[in-house]
Amino acid sequence: MPHRPLDPLDVPTGKRYVVEVAVRWSDQDALSHVNHAVVVELMAEARMLWLAQDAVAAGHEDFLRAKMVASMSIDYSAPVEYGTPLSVAMSVSRIGTKSYTLRHVGTQGDRACFRGTVVLVPRDAESGRARAVTDDERAYLGRFLVAGSE
Amino acid sequence: MPHRPLDPLDVPTGKRYVVEVAVRWSDQDALSHVNHAVVVELMAEARMLWLAQDAVAAGHEDFLRAKMVASMSIDYSAPVEYGTPLSVAMSVSRIGTKSYTLRHVGTQGDRACFRGTVVLVPRDAESGRARAVTDDERAYLGRFLVAGSE
Amino acid sequence: MPHRPLDPLDVPTGKRYVVEVAVRWSDQDALSHVNHAVVVELMAEARMLWLAQDAVAAGHEDFLRAKMVASMSIDYSAPVEYGTPLSVAMSVSRIGTKSYTLRHVGTQGDRACFRGTVVLVPRDAESGRARAVTDDERAYLGRFLVAGSE
Amino acid sequence: MPHRPLDPLDVPTGKRYVVEVAVRWSDQDALSHVNHAVVVELMAEARMLWLAQDAVAAGHEDFLRAKMVASMSIDYSAPVEYGTPLSVAMSVSRIGTKSYTLRHVGTQGDRACFRGTVVLVPRDAESGRARAVTDDERAYLGRFLVAGSE
Repeated sequence: MPHRPLDPLDVPTGKRYVVEVAVRWSDQDALSHVNHAVVVELMAEARMLWLAQDAVAAGHEDFLRAKMVASMSIDYSAPVEYGTPLSVAMSVSRIGTKSYTLRHVGTQGDRACFRGTVVLVPRDAESGRARAVTDDERAYLGRFLVAGSE
Repeated sequence: MPHRPLDPLDVPTGKRYVVEVAVRWSDQDALSHVNHAVVVELMAEARMLWLAQDAVAAGHEDFLRAKMVASMSIDYSAPVEYGTPLSVAMSVSRIGTKSYTLRHVGTQGDRACFRGTVVLVPRDAESGRARAVTDDERAYLGRFLVAGSE
Repeated sequence: MPHRPLDPLDVPTGKRYVVEVAVRWSDQDALSHVNHAVVVELMAEARMLWLAQDAVAAGHEDFLRAKMVASMSIDYSAPVEYGTPLSVAMSVSRIGTKSYTLRHVGTQGDRACFRGTVVLVPRDAESGRARAVTDDERAYLGRFLVAGSE
Repeated sequence: MPHRPLDPLDVPTGKRYVVEVAVRWSDQDALSHVNHAVVVELMAEARMLWLAQDAVAAGHEDFLRAKMVASMSIDYSAPVEYGTPLSVAMSVSRIGTKSYTLRHVGTQGDRACFRGTVVLVPRDAESGRARAVTDDERAYLGRFLVAGSE
Protein backbone atom coordinates (compact mmCIF):
# COMPACT_ATOMS: atom_id res chain seq x y z
CA MET A 1 0.00 0.00 0.00
CA PRO A 2 2.30 2.87 -1.18
CA HIS A 3 1.54 6.39 0.01
CA ARG A 4 2.52 9.75 -1.41
CA PRO A 5 4.75 11.94 0.80
CA LEU A 6 2.50 13.32 3.51
CA ASP A 7 3.45 16.97 3.80
CA PRO A 8 1.12 17.80 6.68
CA LEU A 9 3.25 15.67 8.97
CA ASP A 10 6.52 17.04 7.69
CA VAL A 11 8.17 13.85 8.87
CA PRO A 12 10.72 11.73 6.93
CA THR A 13 8.89 8.76 5.41
CA GLY A 14 10.92 6.17 7.30
CA LYS A 15 9.91 7.71 10.61
CA ARG A 16 6.19 7.14 10.31
CA TYR A 17 3.82 4.27 9.94
CA VAL A 18 0.77 4.75 7.73
CA VAL A 19 -2.41 2.64 7.75
CA GLU A 20 -5.78 2.86 6.09
CA VAL A 21 -8.81 2.71 8.36
CA ALA A 22 -12.23 1.79 6.99
CA VAL A 23 -14.94 4.37 7.75
CA ARG A 24 -18.45 2.94 8.25
CA TRP A 25 -21.73 4.46 7.18
CA SER A 26 -22.86 4.18 10.80
CA ASP A 27 -19.94 6.38 11.89
CA GLN A 28 -21.89 9.34 10.60
CA ASP A 29 -24.01 11.35 13.02
CA ALA A 30 -27.28 13.20 12.48
CA LEU A 31 -25.30 15.91 10.63
CA SER A 32 -23.88 13.36 8.12
CA HIS A 33 -20.37 13.85 9.47
CA VAL A 34 -18.16 11.28 11.07
CA ASN A 35 -18.66 12.32 14.67
CA HIS A 36 -15.67 13.80 16.54
CA ALA A 37 -15.89 10.95 19.08
CA VAL A 38 -15.72 8.38 16.28
CA VAL A 39 -12.51 10.04 15.06
CA VAL A 40 -11.00 9.08 18.42
CA GLU A 41 -12.11 5.49 17.80
CA LEU A 42 -10.56 5.57 14.30
CA MET A 43 -7.26 6.82 15.77
CA ALA A 44 -7.31 3.92 18.24
CA GLU A 45 -8.01 1.46 15.43
CA ALA A 46 -5.08 2.93 13.46
CA ARG A 47 -2.79 2.17 16.42
CA MET A 48 -4.10 -1.39 16.66
CA LEU A 49 -3.44 -1.93 12.93
CA TRP A 50 0.10 -0.60 13.30
CA LEU A 51 0.79 -2.94 16.20
CA ALA A 52 -0.78 -5.99 14.60
CA GLN A 53 0.84 -5.41 11.21
CA ASP A 54 4.32 -4.37 12.22
CA ALA A 55 5.21 -4.44 15.90
CA VAL A 56 4.11 -8.04 16.42
CA ALA A 57 5.82 -9.11 13.19
CA ALA A 58 8.97 -7.50 14.59
CA GLY A 59 8.70 -9.68 17.69
CA HIS A 60 7.31 -7.03 20.05
CA GLU A 61 4.27 -8.91 21.31
CA ASP A 62 4.05 -6.68 24.36
CA PHE A 63 2.61 -3.94 22.22
CA LEU A 64 -0.62 -5.82 21.79
CA ARG A 65 -1.09 -6.10 25.53
CA ALA A 66 -3.13 -3.67 27.57
CA LYS A 67 -2.25 -0.03 27.58
CA MET A 68 -4.07 3.03 28.93
CA VAL A 69 -4.68 6.35 27.28
CA ALA A 70 -3.48 8.89 29.85
CA SER A 71 -4.31 12.00 27.85
CA MET A 72 -5.18 13.09 24.37
CA SER A 73 -5.53 16.25 22.33
CA ILE A 74 -6.98 16.63 18.86
CA ASP A 75 -7.39 19.39 16.30
CA TYR A 76 -10.14 18.85 13.77
CA SER A 77 -9.44 20.73 10.54
CA ALA A 78 -11.93 19.10 8.16
CA PRO A 79 -14.77 16.60 8.57
CA VAL A 80 -13.98 12.95 7.85
CA GLU A 81 -16.36 11.78 5.15
CA TYR A 82 -17.85 8.40 4.43
CA GLY A 83 -16.87 6.88 1.09
CA THR A 84 -13.27 8.14 0.84
CA PRO A 85 -10.22 6.18 2.07
CA LEU A 86 -8.87 7.52 5.35
CA SER A 87 -5.11 7.31 5.93
CA VAL A 88 -3.65 7.75 9.38
CA ALA A 89 0.09 8.47 9.63
CA MET A 90 1.67 7.90 13.03
CA SER A 91 5.02 8.84 14.56
CA VAL A 92 6.54 8.97 18.04
CA SER A 93 7.22 12.32 19.65
CA ARG A 94 8.41 11.26 23.11
CA ILE A 95 9.56 8.09 24.88
CA GLY A 96 9.45 8.47 28.67
CA THR A 97 10.08 6.07 31.53
CA LYS A 98 6.46 5.10 32.11
CA SER A 99 4.71 6.49 29.05
CA TYR A 100 5.20 7.49 25.43
CA THR A 101 3.53 9.93 23.08
CA LEU A 102 2.21 9.23 19.59
CA ARG A 103 1.18 11.72 16.93
CA HIS A 104 -1.50 10.95 14.37
CA VAL A 105 -2.43 12.79 11.19
CA GLY A 106 -5.58 11.70 9.38
CA THR A 107 -5.99 12.55 5.69
CA GLN A 108 -8.55 11.91 2.98
CA GLY A 109 -7.06 12.53 -0.46
CA ASP A 110 -5.06 15.76 -0.24
CA ARG A 111 -6.90 17.04 2.76
CA ALA A 112 -5.69 16.74 6.35
CA CYS A 113 -8.76 16.06 8.54
CA PHE A 114 -7.30 15.85 12.04
CA ARG A 115 -4.10 15.89 14.05
CA GLY A 116 -4.05 14.06 17.37
CA THR A 117 -1.53 13.48 20.12
CA VAL A 118 -2.02 10.61 22.56
CA VAL A 119 -0.03 9.72 25.69
CA LEU A 120 -0.03 5.96 26.34
CA VAL A 121 0.92 4.11 29.51
CA PRO A 122 1.81 0.39 29.23
CA ARG A 123 0.04 -1.87 31.68
CA ASP A 124 0.95 -5.24 33.05
CA ALA A 125 -1.33 -7.73 31.29
CA GLU A 126 -1.94 -9.76 34.46
CA SER A 127 -2.36 -7.13 37.16
CA GLY A 128 -3.60 -4.32 34.94
CA ARG A 129 -1.24 -1.90 36.70
CA ALA A 130 0.94 0.69 34.99
CA ARG A 131 4.45 -0.52 34.24
CA ALA A 132 7.64 0.97 32.76
CA VAL A 133 8.32 1.05 29.03
CA THR A 134 10.56 -1.97 28.32
CA ASP A 135 13.90 -1.75 26.48
CA ASP A 136 12.41 -3.66 23.57
CA GLU A 137 9.52 -1.24 23.31
CA ARG A 138 11.92 1.70 23.57
CA ALA A 139 14.01 0.32 20.70
CA TYR A 140 10.98 -0.27 18.53
CA LEU A 141 9.46 3.15 19.23
CA GLY A 142 12.85 4.77 18.60
CA ARG A 143 12.61 3.85 14.92
CA PHE A 144 9.61 6.20 14.65
CA LEU A 145 10.88 8.94 16.95
CA VAL A 146 10.87 12.43 15.48
CA ALA A 147 13.12 14.59 17.66
CA GLY A 148 11.77 17.86 18.94
CA SER A 149 8.36 17.25 17.49
CA GLU A 150 6.41 17.80 20.66
CA MET B 1 -31.07 16.27 41.23
CA PRO B 2 -28.96 18.02 43.92
CA HIS B 3 -25.18 17.58 43.83
CA ARG B 4 -22.58 17.92 46.56
CA PRO B 5 -19.99 20.68 46.07
CA LEU B 6 -17.61 19.37 43.42
CA ASP B 7 -14.14 20.19 44.72
CA PRO B 8 -12.23 18.88 41.71
CA LEU B 9 -13.60 21.71 39.63
CA ASP B 10 -13.02 24.38 42.25
CA VAL B 11 -15.72 26.46 40.64
CA PRO B 12 -18.56 28.32 42.41
CA THR B 13 -21.70 26.17 42.19
CA GLY B 14 -23.68 28.80 40.28
CA LYS B 15 -21.06 28.86 37.56
CA ARG B 16 -21.40 25.27 36.44
CA TYR B 17 -24.04 22.97 35.08
CA VAL B 18 -24.07 19.36 36.23
CA VAL B 19 -25.79 16.43 34.53
CA GLU B 20 -25.85 12.69 35.01
CA VAL B 21 -25.03 10.57 31.97
CA ALA B 22 -26.08 6.90 31.80
CA VAL B 23 -23.18 4.52 31.10
CA ARG B 24 -24.09 1.41 29.09
CA TRP B 25 -22.73 -2.09 29.49
CA SER B 26 -21.75 -1.97 25.82
CA ASP B 27 -19.57 1.09 26.50
CA GLN B 28 -17.01 -1.28 28.00
CA ASP B 29 -14.18 -2.55 25.82
CA ALA B 30 -12.35 -5.88 25.90
CA LEU B 31 -10.54 -4.68 29.04
CA SER B 32 -13.86 -4.08 30.89
CA HIS B 33 -13.25 -0.34 30.95
CA VAL B 34 -15.33 2.36 29.40
CA ASN B 35 -13.17 3.01 26.37
CA HIS B 36 -11.42 6.42 26.13
CA ALA B 37 -13.28 7.12 22.87
CA VAL B 38 -16.60 6.44 24.57
CA VAL B 39 -15.68 9.03 27.23
CA VAL B 40 -15.64 11.59 24.41
CA GLU B 41 -19.14 10.45 23.43
CA LEU B 42 -20.30 10.76 27.07
CA MET B 43 -18.92 14.32 27.22
CA ALA B 44 -20.86 15.18 24.05
CA GLU B 45 -24.03 13.67 25.53
CA ALA B 46 -23.50 15.76 28.69
CA ARG B 47 -23.43 18.91 26.53
CA MET B 48 -26.63 17.87 24.75
CA LEU B 49 -28.38 17.29 28.11
CA TRP B 50 -27.28 20.71 29.33
CA LEU B 51 -28.63 22.39 26.20
CA ALA B 52 -31.89 20.47 26.14
CA GLN B 53 -32.55 20.89 29.87
CA ASP B 54 -31.50 24.47 30.41
CA ALA B 55 -30.46 26.51 27.40
CA VAL B 56 -33.60 25.78 25.40
CA ALA B 57 -35.80 26.39 28.45
CA ALA B 58 -34.08 29.78 28.75
CA GLY B 59 -35.10 30.60 25.19
CA HIS B 60 -31.76 29.97 23.51
CA GLU B 61 -32.88 27.56 20.82
CA ASP B 62 -29.80 28.27 18.77
CA PHE B 63 -27.78 26.11 21.09
CA LEU B 64 -29.46 22.99 19.81
CA ARG B 65 -28.50 23.76 16.26
CA ALA B 66 -25.39 22.43 14.59
CA LYS B 67 -22.01 23.13 16.05
CA MET B 68 -18.57 21.76 15.27
CA VAL B 69 -15.89 20.54 17.62
CA ALA B 70 -12.77 22.43 16.55
CA SER B 71 -10.40 20.90 19.08
CA MET B 72 -10.42 18.90 22.26
CA SER B 73 -8.04 17.82 24.99
CA ILE B 74 -8.69 15.30 27.74
CA ASP B 75 -6.85 13.99 30.79
CA TYR B 76 -7.96 10.58 31.99
CA SER B 77 -7.27 10.14 35.71
CA ALA B 78 -9.36 7.05 36.51
CA PRO B 79 -11.37 4.59 34.44
CA VAL B 80 -15.12 5.21 34.14
CA GLU B 81 -16.89 2.11 35.40
CA TYR B 82 -20.19 0.56 34.47
CA GLY B 83 -22.77 0.46 37.25
CA THR B 84 -21.94 3.74 39.02
CA PRO B 85 -23.64 7.08 38.26
CA LEU B 86 -21.44 9.39 36.20
CA SER B 87 -21.74 13.14 36.81
CA VAL B 88 -20.35 15.63 34.34
CA ALA B 89 -19.88 19.23 35.54
CA MET B 90 -19.45 21.86 32.83
CA SER B 91 -18.35 25.48 32.84
CA VAL B 92 -17.23 28.05 30.27
CA SER B 93 -13.60 29.12 30.15
CA ARG B 94 -13.60 31.38 27.10
CA ILE B 95 -16.11 33.17 24.85
CA GLY B 96 -14.56 34.27 21.57
CA THR B 97 -15.94 35.89 18.43
CA LYS B 98 -16.39 32.68 16.45
CA SER B 99 -15.92 29.98 19.08
CA TYR B 100 -16.17 29.23 22.79
CA THR B 101 -14.48 26.82 25.14
CA LEU B 102 -16.17 24.45 27.61
CA ARG B 103 -14.57 22.54 30.45
CA HIS B 104 -15.90 19.19 31.64
CA VAL B 105 -15.11 17.22 34.78
CA GLY B 106 -16.46 13.69 35.02
CA THR B 107 -16.80 12.08 38.46
CA GLN B 108 -18.08 8.79 39.84
CA GLY B 109 -18.70 9.07 43.57
CA ASP B 110 -15.75 10.94 45.08
CA ARG B 111 -13.42 10.12 42.23
CA ALA B 112 -12.65 12.44 39.32
CA CYS B 113 -12.37 10.27 36.18
CA PHE B 114 -11.56 12.79 33.48
CA ARG B 115 -11.15 16.48 32.69
CA GLY B 116 -11.81 17.66 29.17
CA THR B 117 -11.67 20.96 27.32
CA VAL B 118 -13.59 21.37 24.06
CA VAL B 119 -13.57 24.30 21.62
CA LEU B 120 -16.92 24.64 19.83
CA VAL B 121 -17.74 26.62 16.68
CA PRO B 122 -21.41 27.52 16.01
CA ARG B 123 -22.64 26.70 12.53
CA ASP B 124 -25.44 28.10 10.50
CA ALA B 125 -28.19 25.47 10.53
CA GLU B 126 -29.06 25.98 6.85
CA SER B 127 -25.68 26.38 5.17
CA GLY B 128 -23.63 24.40 7.66
CA ARG B 129 -20.96 27.11 7.64
CA ALA B 130 -19.23 28.54 10.70
CA ARG B 131 -20.88 31.66 12.08
CA ALA B 132 -20.18 34.12 14.89
CA VAL B 133 -21.34 33.58 18.46
CA THR B 134 -24.59 35.57 18.83
CA ASP B 135 -25.20 38.12 21.59
CA ASP B 136 -27.84 35.83 23.09
CA GLU B 137 -25.42 32.93 23.19
CA ARG B 138 -22.75 35.18 24.69
CA ALA B 139 -25.12 36.27 27.45
CA TYR B 140 -26.15 32.71 28.22
CA LEU B 141 -22.57 31.38 28.23
CA GLY B 142 -21.49 34.32 30.40
CA ARG B 143 -23.53 32.94 33.29
CA PHE B 144 -21.17 29.96 33.36
CA LEU B 145 -17.93 31.79 32.62
CA VAL B 146 -15.11 31.21 35.08
CA ALA B 147 -12.57 33.99 34.59
CA GLY B 148 -8.95 33.03 34.12
CA SER B 149 -9.76 29.36 34.08
CA GLU B 150 -8.05 28.55 30.84
CA MET C 1 -41.04 4.76 38.24
CA PRO C 2 -44.73 3.88 37.69
CA HIS C 3 -45.84 2.83 34.21
CA ARG C 4 -49.27 2.83 32.62
CA PRO C 5 -50.64 -0.56 31.54
CA LEU C 6 -48.77 -1.45 28.38
CA ASP C 7 -51.40 -2.72 25.98
CA PRO C 8 -49.04 -3.59 23.14
CA LEU C 9 -47.62 -6.41 25.24
CA ASP C 10 -50.98 -7.65 26.42
CA VAL C 11 -49.26 -9.19 29.41
CA PRO C 12 -50.38 -9.00 33.07
CA THR C 13 -48.36 -6.29 34.81
CA GLY C 14 -46.79 -8.67 37.31
CA LYS C 15 -45.39 -10.79 34.52
CA ARG C 16 -43.15 -8.16 33.00
CA TYR C 17 -40.25 -6.02 34.02
CA VAL C 18 -40.07 -2.47 32.66
CA VAL C 19 -37.03 -0.22 32.53
CA GLU C 20 -36.21 3.14 31.00
CA VAL C 21 -33.18 3.31 28.74
CA ALA C 22 -31.47 6.63 27.99
CA VAL C 23 -31.15 7.39 24.28
CA ARG C 24 -28.07 9.39 23.28
CA TRP C 25 -27.79 12.06 20.63
CA SER C 26 -24.99 10.02 19.07
CA ASP C 27 -27.36 7.06 18.66
CA GLN C 28 -28.84 8.88 15.68
CA ASP C 29 -27.59 8.07 12.22
CA ALA C 30 -27.24 10.29 9.15
CA LEU C 31 -31.04 10.12 8.74
CA SER C 32 -31.63 11.49 12.29
CA HIS C 33 -33.12 8.18 13.42
CA VAL C 34 -31.86 5.91 16.11
CA ASN C 35 -30.22 3.32 13.90
CA HIS C 36 -31.74 -0.18 13.83
CA ALA C 37 -28.45 -1.63 15.10
CA VAL C 38 -28.49 0.77 18.05
CA VAL C 39 -31.98 -0.51 18.94
CA VAL C 40 -30.36 -3.92 19.46
CA GLU C 41 -27.86 -2.27 21.81
CA LEU C 42 -30.70 -0.56 23.69
CA MET C 43 -32.49 -3.91 24.11
CA ALA C 44 -29.29 -5.41 25.54
CA GLU C 45 -28.93 -2.47 27.93
CA ALA C 46 -32.55 -2.99 29.04
CA ARG C 47 -31.70 -6.60 29.95
CA MET C 48 -28.63 -5.50 31.91
CA LEU C 49 -30.73 -2.96 33.86
CA TRP C 50 -33.31 -5.64 34.67
CA LEU C 51 -30.62 -7.99 35.96
CA ALA C 52 -28.75 -5.36 37.93
CA GLN C 53 -31.89 -3.83 39.46
CA ASP C 54 -33.90 -6.93 40.25
CA ALA C 55 -32.31 -10.32 39.63
CA VAL C 56 -29.18 -9.56 41.64
CA ALA C 57 -31.23 -7.99 44.45
CA ALA C 58 -33.23 -11.25 44.52
CA GLY C 59 -30.01 -13.19 45.07
CA HIS C 60 -29.58 -14.48 41.51
CA GLU C 61 -26.06 -13.31 40.89
CA ASP C 62 -25.60 -15.81 38.09
CA PHE C 63 -27.68 -13.64 35.84
CA LEU C 64 -24.94 -11.05 35.63
CA ARG C 65 -22.45 -13.61 34.44
CA ALA C 66 -21.69 -14.22 30.79
CA LYS C 67 -24.44 -15.25 28.44
CA MET C 68 -24.58 -15.55 24.66
CA VAL C 69 -27.23 -14.34 22.28
CA ALA C 70 -28.04 -17.40 20.16
CA SER C 71 -30.63 -15.76 17.95
CA MET C 72 -32.75 -12.67 17.71
CA SER C 73 -35.66 -11.31 15.72
CA ILE C 74 -37.01 -7.77 15.71
CA ASP C 75 -39.91 -5.92 14.16
CA TYR C 76 -39.47 -2.17 13.86
CA SER C 77 -42.81 -0.38 13.80
CA ALA C 78 -41.76 3.23 14.43
CA PRO C 79 -38.42 5.02 14.68
CA VAL C 80 -36.98 5.57 18.15
CA GLU C 81 -36.43 9.30 18.59
CA TYR C 82 -33.91 11.24 20.59
CA GLY C 83 -35.37 13.39 23.37
CA THR C 84 -38.27 11.17 24.46
CA PRO C 85 -38.07 8.57 27.27
CA LEU C 86 -37.81 5.02 25.95
CA SER C 87 -39.44 2.25 28.01
CA VAL C 88 -38.59 -1.38 27.39
CA ALA C 89 -40.96 -4.01 28.82
CA MET C 90 -39.60 -7.54 29.06
CA SER C 91 -41.19 -10.93 29.71
CA VAL C 92 -40.18 -14.58 29.37
CA SER C 93 -41.76 -16.70 26.64
CA ARG C 94 -39.82 -19.95 27.03
CA ILE C 95 -37.50 -21.62 29.55
CA GLY C 96 -35.58 -24.52 28.02
CA THR C 97 -32.84 -26.80 29.29
CA LYS C 98 -29.93 -24.87 27.85
CA SER C 99 -31.53 -21.61 26.78
CA TYR C 100 -34.43 -19.24 27.44
CA THR C 101 -36.32 -16.71 25.37
CA LEU C 102 -37.09 -13.10 26.28
CA ARG C 103 -39.54 -10.74 24.63
CA HIS C 104 -39.00 -6.99 24.55
CA VAL C 105 -41.41 -4.21 23.62
CA GLY C 106 -39.99 -0.70 23.27
CA THR C 107 -42.33 2.28 23.56
CA GLN C 108 -42.04 6.06 23.49
CA GLY C 109 -45.15 7.68 24.94
CA ASP C 110 -48.16 5.84 23.47
CA ARG C 111 -46.26 4.50 20.51
CA ALA C 112 -44.73 1.03 20.27
CA CYS C 113 -41.41 1.37 18.42
CA PHE C 114 -40.14 -2.21 18.28
CA ARG C 115 -40.81 -5.77 19.40
CA GLY C 116 -37.85 -8.12 19.78
CA THR C 117 -37.36 -11.74 20.77
CA VAL C 118 -33.95 -12.92 21.95
CA VAL C 119 -32.77 -16.46 22.74
CA LEU C 120 -30.09 -16.46 25.43
CA VAL C 121 -27.68 -19.25 26.40
CA PRO C 122 -26.04 -19.11 29.84
CA ARG C 123 -22.28 -19.60 29.83
CA ASP C 124 -19.92 -20.77 32.51
CA ALA C 125 -18.10 -17.67 33.73
CA GLU C 126 -14.73 -19.44 33.97
CA SER C 127 -14.64 -21.62 30.85
CA GLY C 128 -16.94 -19.50 28.71
CA ARG C 129 -18.76 -22.65 27.57
CA ALA C 130 -22.51 -23.04 27.32
CA ARG C 131 -24.13 -24.52 30.43
CA ALA C 132 -27.64 -25.56 31.49
CA VAL C 133 -30.13 -23.12 32.98
CA THR C 134 -29.89 -23.57 36.78
CA ASP C 135 -32.91 -24.27 39.02
CA ASP C 136 -32.51 -20.84 40.61
CA GLU C 137 -32.55 -19.17 37.23
CA ARG C 138 -35.56 -21.25 36.21
CA ALA C 139 -37.45 -20.16 39.32
CA TYR C 140 -36.61 -16.51 38.77
CA LEU C 141 -37.51 -16.54 35.08
CA GLY C 142 -40.75 -18.39 35.89
CA ARG C 143 -42.06 -15.29 37.64
CA PHE C 144 -42.04 -13.52 34.25
CA LEU C 145 -43.17 -16.45 32.11
CA VAL C 146 -46.14 -15.78 29.88
CA ALA C 147 -47.54 -19.15 28.80
CA GLY C 148 -48.13 -19.73 25.12
CA SER C 149 -46.65 -16.40 24.18
CA GLU C 150 -44.18 -17.71 21.66
CA MET D 1 -11.05 -10.06 -4.27
CA PRO D 2 -11.82 -13.70 -5.27
CA HIS D 3 -13.71 -15.88 -2.82
CA ARG D 4 -13.88 -19.64 -2.51
CA PRO D 5 -17.32 -21.23 -3.05
CA LEU D 6 -19.31 -20.47 0.09
CA ASP D 7 -21.07 -23.70 0.93
CA PRO D 8 -22.98 -22.40 3.95
CA LEU D 9 -25.11 -20.30 1.64
CA ASP D 10 -25.63 -23.04 -0.91
CA VAL D 11 -26.28 -20.38 -3.51
CA PRO D 12 -24.85 -20.26 -7.06
CA THR D 13 -21.88 -17.88 -7.10
CA GLY D 14 -23.45 -15.52 -9.62
CA LYS D 15 -26.46 -15.01 -7.37
CA ARG D 16 -24.64 -13.48 -4.46
CA TYR D 17 -22.52 -10.46 -3.72
CA VAL D 18 -19.62 -10.85 -1.30
CA VAL D 19 -17.79 -8.08 0.55
CA GLU D 20 -15.18 -7.92 3.26
CA VAL D 21 -16.00 -5.82 6.29
CA ALA D 22 -13.25 -4.54 8.60
CA VAL D 23 -13.75 -5.48 12.25
CA ARG D 24 -12.43 -2.95 14.78
CA TRP D 25 -10.79 -3.65 18.11
CA SER D 26 -13.43 -1.43 19.71
CA ASP D 27 -16.16 -3.73 18.36
CA GLN D 28 -15.29 -6.16 21.12
CA ASP D 29 -17.27 -6.08 24.34
CA ALA D 30 -16.17 -6.82 27.91
CA LEU D 31 -16.18 -10.54 27.01
CA SER D 32 -13.67 -9.98 24.12
CA HIS D 33 -16.31 -10.92 21.55
CA VAL D 34 -17.69 -8.78 18.82
CA ASN D 35 -20.98 -7.88 20.45
CA HIS D 36 -24.18 -9.23 18.87
CA ALA D 37 -25.41 -5.67 18.31
CA VAL D 38 -22.21 -4.80 16.46
CA VAL D 39 -22.85 -7.78 14.14
CA VAL D 40 -26.02 -5.96 13.08
CA GLU D 41 -23.92 -2.88 12.33
CA LEU D 42 -21.46 -5.00 10.30
CA MET D 43 -24.35 -6.46 8.27
CA ALA D 44 -25.56 -2.92 7.53
CA GLU D 45 -22.06 -1.89 6.48
CA ALA D 46 -21.89 -4.93 4.16
CA ARG D 47 -25.07 -3.71 2.45
CA MET D 48 -23.64 -0.20 2.05
CA LEU D 49 -20.46 -1.63 0.48
CA TRP D 50 -22.52 -3.70 -1.95
CA LEU D 51 -24.55 -0.67 -2.99
CA ALA D 52 -21.57 1.66 -3.29
CA GLN D 53 -19.39 -0.86 -5.15
CA ASP D 54 -21.91 -2.40 -7.51
CA ALA D 55 -25.43 -0.98 -7.57
CA VAL D 56 -24.31 2.61 -8.10
CA ALA D 57 -21.78 1.53 -10.74
CA ALA D 58 -24.69 -0.22 -12.50
CA GLY D 59 -26.60 3.06 -12.59
CA HIS D 60 -28.98 2.36 -9.71
CA GLU D 61 -28.36 5.44 -7.63
CA ASP D 62 -31.65 5.01 -5.82
CA PHE D 63 -30.14 2.24 -3.77
CA LEU D 64 -27.98 4.68 -1.89
CA ARG D 65 -30.96 6.73 -0.86
CA ALA D 66 -32.80 6.26 2.41
CA LYS D 67 -34.30 2.93 3.27
CA MET D 68 -35.80 1.55 6.48
CA VAL D 69 -35.20 -1.77 8.15
CA ALA D 70 -38.70 -3.14 8.76
CA SER D 71 -37.66 -6.38 10.44
CA MET D 72 -34.64 -8.55 10.99
CA SER D 73 -33.76 -11.98 12.28
CA ILE D 74 -30.30 -13.36 13.00
CA ASP D 75 -28.82 -16.68 14.07
CA TYR D 76 -25.43 -16.46 15.71
CA SER D 77 -23.49 -19.71 15.28
CA ALA D 78 -19.96 -18.61 16.25
CA PRO D 79 -18.47 -15.42 17.69
CA VAL D 80 -16.95 -12.93 15.24
CA GLU D 81 -13.35 -12.38 16.26
CA TYR D 82 -11.08 -9.41 15.92
CA GLY D 83 -8.04 -9.94 13.70
CA THR D 84 -9.55 -12.26 11.07
CA PRO D 85 -11.11 -11.06 7.78
CA LEU D 86 -14.91 -11.15 7.87
CA SER D 87 -16.72 -11.94 4.61
CA VAL D 88 -20.42 -11.22 4.23
CA ALA D 89 -22.24 -12.92 1.33
CA MET D 90 -25.61 -11.44 0.39
CA SER D 91 -28.46 -12.62 -1.80
CA VAL D 92 -32.09 -11.67 -2.36
CA SER D 93 -34.85 -13.99 -1.15
CA ARG D 94 -37.95 -11.92 -1.94
CA ILE D 95 -38.90 -8.87 -3.99
CA GLY D 96 -42.27 -7.44 -2.98
CA THR D 97 -44.23 -4.38 -3.98
CA LYS D 98 -43.12 -2.16 -1.14
CA SER D 99 -40.25 -4.12 0.38
CA TYR D 100 -37.58 -6.72 -0.35
CA THR D 101 -35.71 -9.28 1.72
CA LEU D 102 -31.95 -9.81 1.85
CA ARG D 103 -30.07 -12.73 3.31
CA HIS D 104 -26.59 -12.37 4.79
CA VAL D 105 -24.06 -15.04 5.76
CA GLY D 106 -20.97 -13.92 7.67
CA THR D 107 -17.88 -16.13 7.65
CA GLN D 108 -14.37 -15.98 9.05
CA GLY D 109 -12.13 -18.52 7.31
CA ASP D 110 -14.09 -21.76 7.04
CA ARG D 111 -16.44 -20.89 9.86
CA ALA D 112 -19.92 -19.44 9.40
CA CYS D 113 -20.47 -16.90 12.20
CA PHE D 114 -24.00 -15.65 11.56
CA ARG D 115 -26.94 -15.80 9.18
CA GLY D 116 -29.26 -12.82 9.00
CA THR D 117 -32.41 -11.92 7.10
CA VAL D 118 -33.42 -8.28 6.76
CA VAL D 119 -36.60 -6.79 5.27
CA LEU D 120 -35.95 -3.38 3.73
CA VAL D 121 -38.47 -0.70 2.74
CA PRO D 122 -37.35 1.99 0.24
CA ARG D 123 -38.11 5.55 1.28
CA ASP D 124 -38.55 8.68 -0.72
CA ALA D 125 -35.39 10.72 -0.20
CA GLU D 126 -37.27 14.02 0.07
CA SER D 127 -40.32 13.16 2.15
CA GLY D 128 -38.82 10.22 4.04
CA ARG D 129 -42.01 8.22 3.41
CA ALA D 130 -42.15 4.60 2.31
CA ARG D 131 -42.40 4.15 -1.44
CA ALA D 132 -42.77 1.21 -3.85
CA VAL D 133 -39.79 -0.73 -5.18
CA THR D 134 -39.02 0.75 -8.62
CA ASP D 135 -38.72 -1.32 -11.80
CA ASP D 136 -35.02 -0.54 -11.96
CA GLU D 137 -34.51 -1.75 -8.43
CA ARG D 138 -36.56 -4.86 -9.16
CA ALA D 139 -34.39 -5.66 -12.18
CA TYR D 140 -31.18 -5.16 -10.23
CA LEU D 141 -32.33 -7.21 -7.25
CA GLY D 142 -33.56 -9.93 -9.61
CA ARG D 143 -29.97 -10.72 -10.55
CA PHE D 144 -29.38 -11.86 -6.97
CA LEU D 145 -32.73 -13.53 -6.38
CA VAL D 146 -32.57 -17.10 -5.12
CA ALA D 147 -35.99 -18.65 -5.70
CA GLY D 148 -37.68 -20.41 -2.83
CA SER D 149 -34.97 -19.43 -0.43
CA GLU D 150 -37.20 -17.83 2.17
